Amino acid sequence: MDLEDTLLMMPGPVPVAPRVLRAMSKPMINHRSPGFAAIYDDCREILADVFQTKNDICIISGSGTAGMEAAVGSVVGSEDRVVSIENGKFGERFKDLAALYGNLAPLEIEWGQPVDLEKLEEQLETGAKAVTLVHNETSAGIMNPAPEIGKLAKKYDALFIMDGVTSLGGDEVKVDEWGVDIAVVGSQKCLAAPPGLAMVSISKKAVEAMDDIKKRPYYVDLKAYKKSGDKARTETPYTPAIPLFYALQEALHIVKEEGMEARIRRHRMLSEAVRASMAEMNIEMFPQLNEYSQYSNTVSAMKAPEGLDGEEIKAEMKKRGIIIAGGQNHLKGKIFRIGSMGNATARDILSTIQTLELVLHEKGLLENFGAGVEAAAKVTDRL
Amino acid sequence: MDLEDTLLMMPGPVPVAPRVLRAMSKPMINHRSPGFAAIYDDCREILADVFQTKNDICIISGSGTAGMEAAVGSVVGSEDRVVSIENGKFGERFKDLAALYGNLAPLEIEWGQPVDLEKLEEQLETGAKAVTLVHNETSAGIMNPAPEIGKLAKKYDALFIMDGVTSLGGDEVKVDEWGVDIAVVGSQKCLAAPPGLAMVSISKKAVEAMDDIKKRPYYVDLKAYKKSGDKARTETPYTPAIPLFYALQEALHIVKEEGMEARIRRHRMLSEAVRASMAEMNIEMFPQLNEYSQYSNTVSAMKAPEGLDGEEIKAEMKKRGIIIAGGQNHLKGKIFRIGSMGNATARDILSTIQTLELVLHEKGLLENFGAGVEAAAKVTDRL
Repeated sequence: MDLEDTLLMMPGPVPVAPRVLRAMSKPMINHRSPGFAAIYDDCREILADVFQTKNDICIISGSGTAGMEAAVGSVVGSEDRVVSIENGKFGERFKDLAALYGNLAPLEIEWGQPVDLEKLEEQLETGAKAVTLVHNETSAGIMNPAPEIGKLAKKYDALFIMDGVTSLGGDEVKVDEWGVDIAVVGSQKCLAAPPGLAMVSISKKAVEAMDDIKKRPYYVDLKAYKKSGDKARTETPYTPAIPLFYALQEALHIVKEEGMEARIRRHRMLSEAVRASMAEMNIEMFPQLNEYSQYSNTVSAMKAPEGLDGEEIKAEMKKRGIIIAGGQNHLKGKIFRIGSMGNATARDILSTIQTLELVLHEKGLLENFGAGVEAAAKVTDRL
Repeated sequence: MDLEDTLLMMPGPVPVAPRVLRAMSKPMINHRSPGFAAIYDDCREILADVFQTKNDICIISGSGTAGMEAAVGSVVGSEDRVVSIENGKFGERFKDLAALYGNLAPLEIEWGQPVDLEKLEEQLETGAKAVTLVHNETSAGIMNPAPEIGKLAKKYDALFIMDGVTSLGGDEVKVDEWGVDIAVVGSQKCLAAPPGLAMVSISKKAVEAMDDIKKRPYYVDLKAYKKSGDKARTETPYTPAIPLFYALQEALHIVKEEGMEARIRRHRMLSEAVRASMAEMNIEMFPQLNEYSQYSNTVSAMKAPEGLDGEEIKAEMKKRGIIIAGGQNHLKGKIFRIGSMGNATARDILSTIQTLELVLHEKGLLENFGAGVEAAAKVTDRL
C-alpha cells in the first residue's frame, strides 16, 4: 500500500505544498513569450528579497550543482588561482570545480570542523582570483562565517563565490552586505519547490570577470543567462523546464506570504528544537564550532550513538514513514542528519523526534522516553 | 480571459497530455531510493525501444542543449579533431561545442541545403575523433542522412555523435544499426513530455573514449551519469528534477501504448498532410533536398509567401490561438515553421491549416480557399 505519504525530513528534496504541485499541472506555454517572461520576472523579484540583493538573478534549469559549476566556470580561467574552502562534501565539490576550471589553492579542513580564518587569509595574501565557500555545509550540519569570509575576499580583491544552496530562503543571507559576487541556491531546499532549478545572483564585478574567460562552460555559462535575462522580454538561453518555473513561482509566493523574517525565525527555531531534543537524548551534535561558526539552522547533523549505526537509524526511521539522511562518504554510518528546511512545521519536527525516541527506546538507548519531544516542544511552542 | 487553451504547433515545447501533467502532482520522493530507481529504469526500458539500441541510456536534468554538450564534452579533448556538420541552427550549436571542447573541422552548408557526403568524406579522410550531426534540423525543416553519415564515421573510425532531439520518438532512428555512438533526445519534442530532460544513449566505444579526456564538463559529464546509472540501485550523479521524471515516465507509457511503428507513421502522415496543403496554397517548402535528404517528418519549414513576412504569419496565427514558429537568426521573417510532433492529432493539423488559410485569405494571398484543408484531410483520413 503506497499512500504517497512519506515525511521527507532530509536536507532536500523537501515536501512540496499541494498548491505548488498543482501549479505544475498547467499546460505548456511558449518559452519565448510575454507569459513566460512574466513568470521569470516575478520569480526574480521575490528572489531579490530572499538574496537581499540588487544584483541580477538568473535561473538555470539544472540542479544546485549546475549552479555551482556556472558560478566557478563562468568567471575562472585555467591560470586563475582559486582558494577553495572545504569542510564538507559540497566544499569538496567546489574544490573539484575549481581544479577543473582554474588553478586550485585548496583550504582543506576536516569535515564538520570550523574554517580557520587566519589560514584563509594566508592563502589570500598570495593573491587569488576567487574564493569559494559553502555557506551552509549540509553534509556536516555546520554554518560557515560568510560575512567574515566576504570581508577577507574584498580585502584581497577576490571574487566571493558562495554556495547558499541550503541557506538561502531559510536562513539569513545578505548577498550585497556580505559582498557575495555569485550566490547559488537550489529550488528543492529552503524554498520548498521541486528539484531541478538553480538560481544564481551575479554582481557587476562577476559580470566583468566573465569577459576574460576563454573557455566558459556552455549550458551553464552565466554570460549567456545574463544576456537572455537582460532582454526587454526576459528569456533563458536554452529551453527552460517550464513546469518547474510554474512550481518555483508558486513556492516563492508562499515565501512572500510568510515573509522572510518569519521564515528565518521558523527555520532557526525548528533546528533549535532538534538540538534541544538531542541534548535530552544524550546525542552529540557532529560539528565542532568556534566563535565564528554556528550549527546549521536548516539541517542538523548528529553523531550516531554508541552501539547504533547511523544507517540503521535511517532505516528504522524509514520503516516508520520518515525519511532522514545518513552521512556521506567517510561519514556514512557515523552520523545521521535531520533536515528542517522549506515549509517544515512544528508538527513535522515533533513527529520526527518522537519517532527517533521510539527507535532509540527499542534499542535500549534512551533513558528518559519523551524528554526529547518535551524539550523540542518547549521551543516550538514559542513559534 | 486566459483559458490556458493555446494550441502549440511549434517545434517544441509541444502540448503535454493531461495525464502527463497530472503525474507531476505526485509528492516528492527521495532520489536515492528504490522508488526513484524504478522510475528511472522504467523510462530507460521504453527509451531503448525508441532509440532502437542496446546501449546505455542516461537521463540528464537539463535541456537538449545540455545533452548536446554532454555528448561532445565527454568524449572530445582539446587536441581532437571534430568534423561538425552544420546546415541549420542546431548544427551551428554543435559546431560551437566542438570548437569549445575540441579542434573544430567545420563542414558548413547553407542552412536548409543538403549535406554533401563527398565533402564530408574528404574531411574524414584527414582523420577525425568524432563527427557531429543534427539528424532532424528543426531550424530548416530538413532531415539529414544519418545512416549514410554513420557508415562514413565507421569507415574512418570516428565517433558518431547525433542530435536526435526532434527525431527520436517521432521518426525512425536506429541507433545500433546506424552506428550512433552518442544520441541525444529532448523531452519536450516528439516524446511529448515537458521540457527539462535530455536522454542520451552511449555506446561502449564512447564510454572508452571518455577515459582519455582530461577536462570533461562537470554537471553534464556522461561518465558520472554512466557510473550512477550502472549502480545496483540506479541513480543520477546530481539531484534529478523529480516531477519531470514522473512526467517523462507517463509520456513514455503513452509512447508504448501507441507503439513506435504507429507513432512514426502518424508523424510522417501529419507532416505529409502539411506539405500537401502547402502545395495547394502555392507555398514553397524551404529545404532543398538531394537523393539522401528528406523533408523533416516532425517540423515543416516553408518560405514566407511574397508580400507577407514570416513573423507576421506567426503573429496572425497567434491572434487566432495557434502558436507556430518563425525563422531563427538570418531566416527570421523569411520562413515559418509548423511543428507536428509529439501527440499531435489530425484535428490539430487541420485546425492549423484552416487557420493559416484564413490568414492568407484575409491578406488576399489565397486562390482556392479550403483547398489546403481538403488536401491535408485526404492524407489524414488514411490515419
